[in-house]
Amino acid sequence: MDFNAHFATQLEALKAEGNYRIFADLERRCGAFPQAGCHREGGVENVTVWCSNDYLGMGQNPEVVQAMVETVQACGTGAGGTRNISGNTVHHLALEAELADLHGKEKALLFTSGYVSNWAALSTLGAKIPGAVILSDEKNHASMIEGIRHSRADKALWKHNDWRDLDRKLHAVGDRPKIVAFESVYSMDGDVAPIREIIEVCEAHGALSYIDEVHAVGMYGPRGGGVSEELGLADRIDVIEGTLGKAFGVVGGYITGSAALVDFVRSYASGFIFTTALPPAVAAAATASIRHLKTSTAERSAQKARVAEVRARLDRAGIPHLANESHIIPVMIGDPVKCRMLSDILMRDWGIYVQPINYPTVPKGTERLRITPGPAHSTADIDHLMTALTSLWSRCAVSHAVA
Amino acid sequence: MDFNAHFATQLEALKAEGNYRIFADLERRCGAFPQAGCHREGGVENVTVWCSNDYLGMGQNPEVVQAMVETVQACGTGAGGTRNISGNTVHHLALEAELADLHGKEKALLFTSGYVSNWAALSTLGAKIPGAVILSDEKNHASMIEGIRHSRADKALWKHNDWRDLDRKLHAVGDRPKIVAFESVYSMDGDVAPIREIIEVCEAHGALSYIDEVHAVGMYGPRGGGVSEELGLADRIDVIEGTLGKAFGVVGGYITGSAALVDFVRSYASGFIFTTALPPAVAAAATASIRHLKTSTAERSAQKARVAEVRARLDRAGIPHLANESHIIPVMIGDPVKCRMLSDILMRDWGIYVQPINYPTVPKGTERLRITPGPAHSTADIDHLMTALTSLWSRCAVSHAVA
Ligand SMILES: Cc1ncc(COP(=O)(O)O)c(C=O)c1O
Ligand SMILES: Cc1ncc(COP(=O)(O)O)c(C=O)c1O
Repeated sequence: MDFNAHFATQLEALKAEGNYRIFADLERRCGAFPQAGCHREGGVENVTVWCSNDYLGMGQNPEVVQAMVETVQACGTGAGGTRNISGNTVHHLALEAELADLHGKEKALLFTSGYVSNWAALSTLGAKIPGAVILSDEKNHASMIEGIRHSRADKALWKHNDWRDLDRKLHAVGDRPKIVAFESVYSMDGDVAPIREIIEVCEAHGALSYIDEVHAVGMYGPRGGGVSEELGLADRIDVIEGTLGKAFGVVGGYITGSAALVDFVRSYASGFIFTTALPPAVAAAATASIRHLKTSTAERSAQKARVAEVRARLDRAGIPHLANESHIIPVMIGDPVKCRMLSDILMRDWGIYVQPINYPTVPKGTERLRITPGPAHSTADIDHLMTALTSLWSRCAVSHAVA
Repeated sequence: MDFNAHFATQLEALKAEGNYRIFADLERRCGAFPQAGCHREGGVENVTVWCSNDYLGMGQNPEVVQAMVETVQACGTGAGGTRNISGNTVHHLALEAELADLHGKEKALLFTSGYVSNWAALSTLGAKIPGAVILSDEKNHASMIEGIRHSRADKALWKHNDWRDLDRKLHAVGDRPKIVAFESVYSMDGDVAPIREIIEVCEAHGALSYIDEVHAVGMYGPRGGGVSEELGLADRIDVIEGTLGKAFGVVGGYITGSAALVDFVRSYASGFIFTTALPPAVAAAATASIRHLKTSTAERSAQKARVAEVRARLDRAGIPHLANESHIIPVMIGDPVKCRMLSDILMRDWGIYVQPINYPTVPKGTERLRITPGPAHSTADIDHLMTALTSLWSRCAVSHAVA
C-alpha cells in the first residue's frame, strides 16, 4: 500500500470541502492580552484575540505567572516521572487538595489534560464496573465520547439537555449500574444543561452522575466552582470534572469525587498511571489561579459585562448569534468556506482574530465564529470588533446565514 | 448499586496482593538533583532519587530553566486554546521544527504527552487506513496498546523482539495495509529491539513502521536522536515517536514522519484536535533541551559511565539485575510485598528513593527496583547506594529472588 498517497487523498478531501485546518501563528504577550502578535506573510502584525479560552486572562495574572516562574526556579522544568515513579510532588498534592476544596469533594485527581481526565475516568469507570451502562448526552465532547467508546461498556445516547428523555432511557436500562455523563456549559453552543433536573433523574434511578464543567470552572459560582456550585448542587453530583487550561489559564485536567472513587480511578486508569506527571510549576501556577478566583470576583463580573455588551450590540446590528446564558457567543455562518473567508478578512483587514469553527468541531452546516469576550477586552476593542463585523455583514450579506 | 462499596472492594483486593500504590511525596530542588526533599511522617527529609526518568538531569539545566522562565514571563502561563483555536504559537512551531530536524523527518507533531502521542497516532492510523492490521510487539507500552485497541483495527501480537516471528505474522496477514509498532528501549527491562532486522522485515512486506523511542531520545545517537539515529536507521522508519518528559526533562510527546502522514494525524486525531495546547513555556523549554543535547555529549557520556559503574558493582556484590545494553538497571525482586518493603527500608534507613515497580507496570512475579543512574549521581551517591543494597541483601537474603 502507498500510505502517503492515501494520506494525501484524505487531506485533499478535507481541502475540497473547506475543512482543512490552518492554524494562526501567534505570539502571546504577557500583560498585553488580548492583544497578540501574529506571524503572517513574513511579518508580525498586532491582532486582538477574540476566540481564546483563556477566558479570564488568568494566563497573564501576575500571581499565576509568579507562581510558575518561582516553581520552575525552585523545582526545575519537569516532574521527572509518572506520579507513582518519582513524579509526585508537594505541588501536585497541594493542587489536588485545592481542587477537592473548590468542588466540596473528598478528593481530586490530576491528569495531564481535561481531555485525558474525561477519557481516562470514563473509560475506567465504564470498564471496571461490571455490567455498567453509560448514558451520554448526545452533544458530549469528543473526550467523553472516546472514553465511553474505549470502555466498551454498553452506551445509550439521550437527547441533548432533555432530562425527560434521560429518564426514559434510564428506565429502559433496568437493573444495571448506570453512569450518566453530561456537560454544564456546552463549548460550541454555549448552552447550559438543566443540571437540577438531570441530577434528580439520576438520583431517582440510583445512577452515578458525571459532569464536565470544563467551560464553567473559574467562571461560575461564588468561588468559581462552576455551574454546579452556582446552583448549590455540587454535593449531589458524584464526579465533577474540569480543566486547568481554560479559565484557570494554565494546562491540565482533573476529576473530583468521593475518596473511594478517586482512589479507584487513581489505581486503575491507564491514562493516569502510565504517563509523566505535569511539571510542578504547572501545578503551582494552577493552584495560584484557583486560589485567586476563589476570592476575587472582579474577573467574573467584568467578563459578564463584556459578554452582555457584545451580545447587545450584535443584536442592534442584526448579526445572528445563538442565544444562551453563558459567556460563549456563537455567530452562525453555516458554511465552512464562508466561515474561513470571514475569519481571513477579519484578520487581514481588521487585525481581529476569530478562528473559524468548522467540522468536526461542530456539525456540518453549523459553521460559526465563536466569540469569547473577556475582562481584558476594552470598550475600544469592542467598538473595533463591531465596526468590522457590521462592515463585513453589509458587504458580504452573510446575514442570511443559518442562525 | 452501591458504587463506593464496589470501589472499596476493588481497592482492598489491590492492597491484599501488595499492589496498592503509595506515592512518595517529593520536593524537587533545582540544582540539587538527584537530591530531593521527601515528606514523611510530618517532616521533610533529604533523599537521593535513584528512579527518576529525568535521566540526564535536564530538568535543572540552566538553559532549559531559563527558557521556561523567560517564556512564562513573555507569553504567560498557558496557550489559551487548542492548537486550532488560538493556542498555536511560534514556540510550538519552533519545537516541531526542532523535532523534525532531530529525527531527520519532514514534519513533527506535538501532543500533550508521550502517552497521548502513541494513543492518538496509533488509534488514528489504525482506524483511518481501511483494512489496516496492526502488528504489535507483545511487550509494547500501555499507551500503544490502548491506542491500537481504540482504533478497532485487527491486531496481531508478535513475540517480544522476535523479528522472525514478526516476519511470519506479516506473511499470514496477506495483502492488507500493515502497521508494525514497537519500542527501541523497553522501559522496564531496558532491553533494546533488533531495529535493523525489524525494519528489514517491514520493508520486505511494505509495512508502515512505528517506533517508540521514549526511553532513548536525548540519550542515544550522536545528537540524541535515539537508537534509530545511533544505528543510522532513522530514514528507514516511517514514524518515530518520543517524549519531552524523560531525558529532555520537561513534559509532552510527539511523532515525526513524512509531511503527509503528520498532516493526516494533525487533521484527524481526536486526541490532538480536542485539547488545549501545551503552554508556550513548556514548548520553549523542550526546544532548549533538545538543542542542548544535539551538541553536548557530556551528559550522555557521564550517564554511560555511572550506569557501567553501578552495574559492575552490583555484579561484584552478587545482586541480581537484568543484563541489557541500556541505562536502565532492573534489580529483580519477584514479589510485590518484598519489593515495597525493600523500597521502604531504603527510604527510611538510608534516604535512598527507589520506587517499587509492581503490577500492572510489570507482570506479576517480576517485581523489581528499577535503578536509573544519571550524570548527576556522584561517586559518593553510588557508594552509599551500594552500602545500602549490600547490607539489605545480606540481611534480608533477597538474593534468591527471581533474576
Ligand atoms: C467540554 C470539553 N471537555 C473537555 C475538554 C478538554 O479539556 P483540555 O483542553 O484541558 O484537554 C474540552 C476542550 O478542550 C471541552 O470543550
Ligand atoms: C515506552 C513508553 N512510551 C510512552 C510513554 C508515555 O510517555 P509520557 O510519559 O510522555 O506520557 C512511556 C512512559 O511514561 C513509556 O514508558
